[in-house]
Amino acid sequence: MKQTLTVNLGDRSYPIYIGLDLFSQPGLIKSHVKSAQVMVVTNVTVGPLYLERVVQQLGGLKVRTLVLPDGEQFKNLATEERIFDALMEYRFGRNSTLIALGGGVIGDLVGFAAACFQRGIDYIQIPTTLLAQVDSSVGGKTGVNHPGGKNMIGAFYQPNCVIADTSVLNTLEQRELSAGIAEVVKYGLIRDREFFDWLEKNMELLLTRDPQALAFAIHRCCLNKARVVSEDELESGVRATLNLGHTFGHAIEAGMGYGRYLHGEAVAIGMCQAAHLSYATGRLEQAEVDRIIRLLQSAKLPVKPPAEMDADRFLEIMTVDKKNIDGAIRLILLDEIGTATLPCGVDQPQLEATLNDYGRS
Amino acid sequence: MKQTLTVNLGDRSYPIYIGLDLFSQPGLIKSHVKSAQVMVVTNVTVGPLYLERVVQQLGGLKVRTLVLPDGEQFKNLATEERIFDALMEYRFGRNSTLIALGGGVIGDLVGFAAACFQRGIDYIQIPTTLLAQVDSSVGGKTGVNHPGGKNMIGAFYQPNCVIADTSVLNTLEQRELSAGIAEVVKYGLIRDREFFDWLEKNMELLLTRDPQALAFAIHRCCLNKARVVSEDELESGVRATLNLGHTFGHAIEAGMGYGRYLHGEAVAIGMCQAAHLSYATGRLEQAEVDRIIRLLQSAKLPVKPPAEMDADRFLEIMTVDKKNIDGAIRLILLDEIGTATLPCGVDQPQLEATLNDYGRS
Repeated sequence: MKQTLTVNLGDRSYPIYIGLDLFSQPGLIKSHVKSAQVMVVTNVTVGPLYLERVVQQLGGLKVRTLVLPDGEQFKNLATEERIFDALMEYRFGRNSTLIALGGGVIGDLVGFAAACFQRGIDYIQIPTTLLAQVDSSVGGKTGVNHPGGKNMIGAFYQPNCVIADTSVLNTLEQRELSAGIAEVVKYGLIRDREFFDWLEKNMELLLTRDPQALAFAIHRCCLNKARVVSEDELESGVRATLNLGHTFGHAIEAGMGYGRYLHGEAVAIGMCQAAHLSYATGRLEQAEVDRIIRLLQSAKLPVKPPAEMDADRFLEIMTVDKKNIDGAIRLILLDEIGTATLPCGVDQPQLEATLNDYGRS
Repeated sequence: MKQTLTVNLGDRSYPIYIGLDLFSQPGLIKSHVKSAQVMVVTNVTVGPLYLERVVQQLGGLKVRTLVLPDGEQFKNLATEERIFDALMEYRFGRNSTLIALGGGVIGDLVGFAAACFQRGIDYIQIPTTLLAQVDSSVGGKTGVNHPGGKNMIGAFYQPNCVIADTSVLNTLEQRELSAGIAEVVKYGLIRDREFFDWLEKNMELLLTRDPQALAFAIHRCCLNKARVVSEDELESGVRATLNLGHTFGHAIEAGMGYGRYLHGEAVAIGMCQAAHLSYATGRLEQAEVDRIIRLLQSAKLPVKPPAEMDADRFLEIMTVDKKNIDGAIRLILLDEIGTATLPCGVDQPQLEATLNDYGRS
């Protein structure tokens, strides 16, 4: 069974397919390749499991493959150059297609390579982690990290399609599954209270990879994301709410060294910090903060900031963030579970208090 | 006196200003800066001459400067990273502006940095070479070279405005002036026969930097370029004609090592090769080929391919070009002076014959 959603962006609209065994569905991937030259880019973890199966679906095309190292610490311009080198070596032209087979790191690297190579070629997202399926593969945010800040170099560039084969989640490490659930919870927090309630009741099913529960959650997240992106592709408004917890989270990822915390883990902590600050600034009830922390804990996610990072270190990194204006930190906060604010300036002493107090006992 | 043209691209439209002493015109640059943070990026040749004057015009803003090495051999991702590093070091946010003060290399590097930093910030083009004033600063083509091919990594990304101060051409080296004239001649060849006739009569005035002749030529080129870009921003059609001679020329630049031939010099040779091939394929009269070669020679430009590069070397590099489809070489040719073809497939033996025969005696 296959569900289809659409990201509506005029002549750049594209489908998201969600379902079991989509890799093996004859013609599905190939029907979205408009060129003779194709390169499938994956990593050393995903490649041995699924690369051959994807390549088999591309019979008749000139297919090349590239296997990159695995991990957030490789999401940088140096790895990007390896993709460009391979494209040049195999003489790829403007009329060619990249396929990103992997998690969020592969998707971001490959999408940005597609955006830049010959000023833009086609690409397809085949996300293989829960996090990538529910969040990063949809919406066209691509790019790499700078040592000083996450996702600082990139482009908005939409794929031809997104193919989320939920069977691959069976081979996902438990830690990666939990990291994906962090972004799942995010959708409940920012715009879907009913879904948050559902998550409270069904977390155990997600953690044990119940196919129906996973399919429901992935579809629900993609539906939310597709609507937000269709409404505000370039993040001039509502799309920014998708960054709940991310300014804190990015600081943890950069501050601790990329790869130490998974993105979803850092975001889980960041959402707790954002919830605490929302309470401290009179927006959110204490009881709702507790519900948020409890739900993330039940997903086996960390909820406390790393002891190694004090408030100063957080602030140092948080002053470089894409939502800031002229260096003033702006954050997404919560009015209640299911309702997020747009980026708003925060009182520095209150922010410092949250950084010093929350999760430090 | 200041002339103003407009590149019409809906809500991304922008003005091109052409005239004497525009750097000193109070408020002109600053009126196009919409942010508090500004970084002026230039190179070691242009910086000592004009950086201070530009910075003076930005009083009241938070201004940073970055001085890069000079030359096509530095138009790569490594230099791009130096711009990103500086932006991060000075904590530039999404709400900031880059100013490109220099020739085509600086403009392409800075434009691409603006396209990618935080997924897109503002930038302004202040071209200081004839080539950049008549061609590369207008139209939003940005990017860097790959060792295997010119401009292989980049983006279409439009500036806030282009400020072409013609007084700066007085400090331009003669070789750079001639290189710029190659692109000037190109506009005559592809779409402005009347201008080509004018150039035949007035080349001496351009070479001696007669202000009126230069102003006329720059305005005429920008007018042509603005019209082409307004019609076809992403090069799906007529914009490709601006690449006359460039596939040959890029092969010379990459094949001889970036920086050895100036871009305009390589394009001059390439346009002669394209003219020869246009004649060989029954498009262009021999007499018109001769006029083209004579005009470029009168501009002190090289017109023969480097002896070091044989036909095989040309073909090896030319098979990687943005106009190609599935590896088949496509070129812009001339039907007559003033009329160019769209990219068209060429008969391989005829192309080889031109590469072997033209300019080899």
